Amino acid sequence: MAIKVHGYPYSPAVQKVLICLAEKGLDYELVHIDLLAGQQKEEPFISLNGTPLLVQDPKKLAILGVWAEVEAHRFDAVGQKLNYEIRVKPFKGLTADEALVEQLEAQLVTVLDVYEKRLAESKYLAGDDFTLADLHHVPIINSLMKTKVKALFEERPNVNAWCSELLARPASHKVLSKFTF
Amino acid sequence: MAIKVHGYPYSPAVQKVLICLAEKGLDYELVHIDLLAGQQKEEPFISLNGTPLLVQDPKKLAILGVWAEVEAHRFDAVGQKLNYEIRVKPFKGLTADEALVEQLEAQLVTVLDVYEKRLAESKYLAGDDFTLADLHHVPIINSLMKTKVKALFEERPNVNAWCSELLARPASHKVLSKFTF
Repeated sequence: MAIKVHGYPYSPAVQKVLICLAEKGLDYELVHIDLLAGQQKEEPFISLNGTPLLVQDPKKLAILGVWAEVEAHRFDAVGQKLNYEIRVKPFKGLTADEALVEQLEAQLVTVLDVYEKRLAESKYLAGDDFTLADLHHVPIINSLMKTKVKALFEERPNVNAWCSELLARPASHKVLSKFTF
Repeated sequence: MAIKVHGYPYSPAVQKVLICLAEKGLDYELVHIDLLAGQQKEEPFISLNGTPLLVQDPKKLAILGVWAEVEAHRFDAVGQKLNYEIRVKPFKGLTADEALVEQLEAQLVTVLDVYEKRLAESKYLAGDDFTLADLHHVPIINSLMKTKVKALFEERPNVNAWCSELLARPASHKVLSKFTF
């Protein structure tokens, strides 16, 4: 399937993207958005640009940005290390550092308490729609759910429902059902 | 054609990318890079990751970054405005602001003098290989070459040779031959 590029092909910015794809030998299909006619401010372009992983409204996008940063600097920072200790190390025949695991679990609890509160206010982290801010959590949640840490997620009802929903998405299933150990 | 993703599918980072593609309904083909076996440090992955638009070596990548910033803040900042005055405005039936055009031409001369010196030292801006730092120039150069400003590029032999080469690339030709006015 060719990559669809929605844009005004006389725009230098769009041309940069197309030339990149051509340099990489990737097929693309151009969907002409007529800037002069204002099509970039109309449907279907707005919806297309806004869903499902990002949002269009600047305020909502800023909120999404905040939660994407929370994922990167709070959740992922702890989750990756924990995953390494209790999932990757045993797989490699190494022994987890239990003192470090305890520290990381305590840090994860702090993060999940914030999430539990947030997810009482909105269905997803950035609001009522599933976004990249949620998606980024999927691989580590999927992995940690196979460990004792699972309990930390499950004992928080909003976090638990959110995790279940993220993992049940067809896209998550498509990728993760193939690559698990 | 499916998008090829080269990566270790058990890596959470790679899984994020795959889930994104799946969420967007895009086909992908996974080319397995075995991190445990160190394949990410071997050919063909290194070359693939390094060419043609980026480079692998951290020092070279830093140099590329500098020239990409030069493009964005020096060349593009002037080039876009100039392009608007002398190409887009006439196309729309508007009159160019000649005083502004003169100012912009003077600024472009300053940038092109720096480029002329740089391109005496290396074939492309970031070194001996064509990179994104060069590619980003293509749409605006292509457009300005259809105006009186062409002379500013042509009277600098290194810049002129570089421009000719950029515009003659099959990828540039593929995109720009279709979208010109």
